[in-house]
Amino acid sequence: MHAYRTHTCAALNQSDVGQSVRLSGWVHNKRDHGGVLFVDLRDHYGMTQIVADSDSPALPVLEKLKLESVVTIDGDVKARAPEVVNPNLPTGEIEVFAREVNIQSRAEELPLIVNSAEDYPEETRLKYRFVDLRRERVHNNIVLRSQVISSLRQRMIAQGFNEFQTPILGASSPEGARDYLVPSRLHPGRFYALPQAPQMFKQLLMVAGFDRYFQIAPCFRDEDLRADRSPEFYQLDFEMSFVTQEDVFQAIEPVLAGVFEEFSGGKSVTPAGEFPRIPYREAMLKYGSDKPDLRNPIVISDVSHHFTKSGFGIFEKIVGTGGVVRAIPAPNTAEKSRKFFDEMNDWSKKEGFAGLGYVTRKGGEFGGPIAKNHGPENMAKLYEELGLGDDDGLFFAAGKEKDAAKLAGAARTRTAEILGLIEENCFKFCWIVDFPMYEYDEEAKKVDFSHNPFSMPQGEMEALETQDPLDILAWQYDIVCNGYELSSGAIRNHRPDIMYKAFEVAGYSKADVDENFSGMIEAFKLGAPPHGGSAPGIDRIVMLLADEPNIREVIAFPLNQRAQDLMMGAPSQVSARQLRDVHIRTVEPPKEG
Amino acid sequence: MHAYRTHTCAALNQSDVGQSVRLSGWVHNKRDHGGVLFVDLRDHYGMTQIVADSDSPALPVLEKLKLESVVTIDGDVKARAPEVVNPNLPTGEIEVFAREVNIQSRAEELPLIVNSAEDYPEETRLKYRFVDLRRERVHNNIVLRSQVISSLRQRMIAQGFNEFQTPILGASSPEGARDYLVPSRLHPGRFYALPQAPQMFKQLLMVAGFDRYFQIAPCFRDEDLRADRSPEFYQLDFEMSFVTQEDVFQAIEPVLAGVFEEFSGGKSVTPAGEFPRIPYREAMLKYGSDKPDLRNPIVISDVSHHFTKSGFGIFEKIVGTGGVVRAIPAPNTAEKSRKFFDEMNDWSKKEGFAGLGYVTRKGGEFGGPIAKNHGPENMAKLYEELGLGDDDGLFFAAGKEKDAAKLAGAARTRTAEILGLIEENCFKFCWIVDFPMYEYDEEAKKVDFSHNPFSMPQGEMEALETQDPLDILAWQYDIVCNGYELSSGAIRNHRPDIMYKAFEVAGYSKADVDENFSGMIEAFKLGAPPHGGSAPGIDRIVMLLADEPNIREVIAFPLNQRAQDLMMGAPSQVSARQLRDVHIRTVEPPKEG
Repeated sequence: MHAYRTHTCAALNQSDVGQSVRLSGWVHNKRDHGGVLFVDLRDHYGMTQIVADSDSPALPVLEKLKLESVVTIDGDVKARAPEVVNPNLPTGEIEVFAREVNIQSRAEELPLIVNSAEDYPEETRLKYRFVDLRRERVHNNIVLRSQVISSLRQRMIAQGFNEFQTPILGASSPEGARDYLVPSRLHPGRFYALPQAPQMFKQLLMVAGFDRYFQIAPCFRDEDLRADRSPEFYQLDFEMSFVTQEDVFQAIEPVLAGVFEEFSGGKSVTPAGEFPRIPYREAMLKYGSDKPDLRNPIVISDVSHHFTKSGFGIFEKIVGTGGVVRAIPAPNTAEKSRKFFDEMNDWSKKEGFAGLGYVTRKGGEFGGPIAKNHGPENMAKLYEELGLGDDDGLFFAAGKEKDAAKLAGAARTRTAEILGLIEENCFKFCWIVDFPMYEYDEEAKKVDFSHNPFSMPQGEMEALETQDPLDILAWQYDIVCNGYELSSGAIRNHRPDIMYKAFEVAGYSKADVDENFSGMIEAFKLGAPPHGGSAPGIDRIVMLLADEPNIREVIAFPLNQRAQDLMMGAPSQVSARQLRDVHIRTVEPPKEG
Repeated sequence: MHAYRTHTCAALNQSDVGQSVRLSGWVHNKRDHGGVLFVDLRDHYGMTQIVADSDSPALPVLEKLKLESVVTIDGDVKARAPEVVNPNLPTGEIEVFAREVNIQSRAEELPLIVNSAEDYPEETRLKYRFVDLRRERVHNNIVLRSQVISSLRQRMIAQGFNEFQTPILGASSPEGARDYLVPSRLHPGRFYALPQAPQMFKQLLMVAGFDRYFQIAPCFRDEDLRADRSPEFYQLDFEMSFVTQEDVFQAIEPVLAGVFEEFSGGKSVTPAGEFPRIPYREAMLKYGSDKPDLRNPIVISDVSHHFTKSGFGIFEKIVGTGGVVRAIPAPNTAEKSRKFFDEMNDWSKKEGFAGLGYVTRKGGEFGGPIAKNHGPENMAKLYEELGLGDDDGLFFAAGKEKDAAKLAGAARTRTAEILGLIEENCFKFCWIVDFPMYEYDEEAKKVDFSHNPFSMPQGEMEALETQDPLDILAWQYDIVCNGYELSSGAIRNHRPDIMYKAFEVAGYSKADVDENFSGMIEAFKLGAPPHGGSAPGIDRIVMLLADEPNIREVIAFPLNQRAQDLMMGAPSQVSARQLRDVHIRTVEPPKEG
């Protein structure tokens, strides 16, 4: 017989009755029924009920053991009486009568209880993470993460991608977030940096001719932390050669839709090939956001033209001075009190906006000051245009376009939340496309890049030479799920001539470009394919699938919010010798105050 | 038609003749046959011959283009004349007559030639790695690496393992090699360390109940470099709960044998389930090494007992004072001159050994001073015992056991190399088992751990309490392939009581143990399963399969031997602000001399 187990704690059922077995696991729970002891024995796979009665030499041993001790049980499989069969447990038809028990590890007093869903301070949980990880929810999260990543890998390989590792000891780069630095021993005064993303390397892999690269890539950013950020995080980093934007979408939609379908637990998922492509400007208009939650059925409309001449002077004035009015429907709110509408207005002011106008409607009758001033006939015309019904209310966000869009977007979310309109049990994906290449920087009074200077402008050189920069769009795209941006991506600018020109439009000289980006430019001068890619966040994907709001719930050994590993004691002091070896000295920070 | 390609450069064959196609790739080679230009167009997948004749507008464009430029070709697939079919190329039956060419990227002068096997200095190759990686051999190595890792993953998952990521920002640990340090911004004066291996974390995953963990784990050691070392390397790190040593072997043999069979290119591989288990002491005797190359058929024997009374006084004296005589057969050396034997002796002295004795034999006649002094009859007895034949020579390594074993091992290797006895086209695996737990430290005049203090001693507490420490074996094992150690592994000591006792035997107090290893010990006090694992080196596996002696040939973007990334310029100087942010200052190293 095996030294530790003939079966896992999830394996035994009716068909094993009568067998002599050996099981090993943790003492999850004990119930003493007067001379008969029931023990739930737990391992990674499941739970089996152990019974020890007064005839069993195991009884006195198990009685004395603390929970979470590890034992090996020799016993016999017996059928449970029909009335105590547990249909929720794979092993619920049987129990194992213990003949013998062998203690593998005696647990002392525990800092947290494994067999309860009780909440503990994060400090306790992370300091004793090896105990916390035994708890059902977090154990399942970490297994889910493992399965999701494995599935992502298989799906990428099925799409013809190869996984390559890029260096973790890299070069510090002047842009982006703060780098984690690593002092060099062999090169005094010099430093490696941990990668914020393998962006340069993946593009160089394309220049090297590898065609379809991916990597479950560890990335590092020394930023201040919050619930959805970790200093160390993972991306499904990928890049493809000889592709258009549409090729990227077609390659990755089956991967994302597939993995969400596999692990959504029955929630519906936007099918591959059907992810809507929403131009950035349309998204800002209809959803007031470039990461719209499409589970929310409310669609914003621009109704500025209704107010060019209106009895409602405020809107008329806003529209007359170049502003806009956006309408956010609040469907089926006939029975809502004025308080609902007024509180929305108050909320918007608290959020720092100018305020949210509204119209109420009940059985076709309009209410509220805007309807009164604008006139019911004009309001009916507006309602008809928006396809609204007799009992639908309407909010208005007015002002400069950017502000109005932002307020409308926030109001759309809040309205849907309060009215319970957010569709549950679904994952809705979309692509946001056609981001503007440039924007006008009000402060610097000049045109500058909107997002990524390294994306290929749509229309390439011709567009740069002939179009108003503010009209030029980029081959750049975000993938969004349920209102969360999973990643940005782009078709890259692989042409040095177009690169110099794109920078020139934003006011940078060839020398500026060469100084800061010579590595990439020089590589592109030795034969570069058109290429593009993206890098969906793995932690975010797992958070969505696990329905967890905190990234630390889906990482086996996360740093806490102060970037400490309480279990291992990192960061820690190191020896003078270690510092000397790498030619650095620590500096006391200046005293505060 | 797709913007860049209807087919890859490996896709077209006879069945496509007559089709109009679009291909994209690099201009690998050009041959001008007087008005007709042949271009080898290359992409990741393969090569297609493009033809442009004087009627084609593509001709003047292609003529002027430098090699390694990237182009898109529109053309028609034509069958090659039978006499120019290239059977070695998947596309060798066809060529594509170019109608049009579109330049995607114009290459400038290249620092190295892609279409030749010419050798370049490592500095050039690494500085322009994105060009070097286009060359067939290294391109294939990197793809092989990707496929090997993917296959390892699939095979581990098939064995019931889950992959979990462990932290890269970890804690510095006092033992082992030098850590790479990462200064903390939030905690002035404190440092993270990059993991030398996720040893603690994988054991804690077992304590957390995950049962079967693996990870293709990045590891970091700030050591001086050589051909087979990289500061950043990967291990197939794994750990299992409730297992014996034999369970570990049974889980991992199919993985290693499977991946070697898959990628060996027809070389034979020790089948899973048949890896020999060789006790450490036997390995040291028979192969003079704990990483024996079993492709070498020579087996060393101890022949000390033949020399207790011998006419050959030197051996008699050595044996009489506790030394040993080891015999290394040199089969079928009847026709070898004395020079062969004498040069082996000279070589052994150059390597710092005392010298290698020998006996020659031809048609049953012994030769050489040892045979003479020992006597032909005695020598014949010795030969009979070793099963040697009439034309086999024999080397002798004599001295203290350790020295003799080492010399015998080196002589075994050299003899087989010179005689061409190393079996080719095979991968021979074995396990080295039963390592001694302790050894006598001659310098410190005390018993100390031989290898890993955290391995479980065979016989556990009872052995520690009752046996001579030098007789105690550990549940520790190495996996060896063709003379390379792929990894060490062990069944761990998960019992605090046995841990304290094991350290006590080596002269360490409970306080010593608590001070240095409290993290692990405290975790084991909260319920730990018996567990064990190992961590075969990925880079070494790929080196063996790719038949490459240098680790940098199987890493996409390796640091050079001075730990520099010449392409990206790492390590580099960073800004004063970056150093201030993490509370350090650089220190000029003391001037030499």
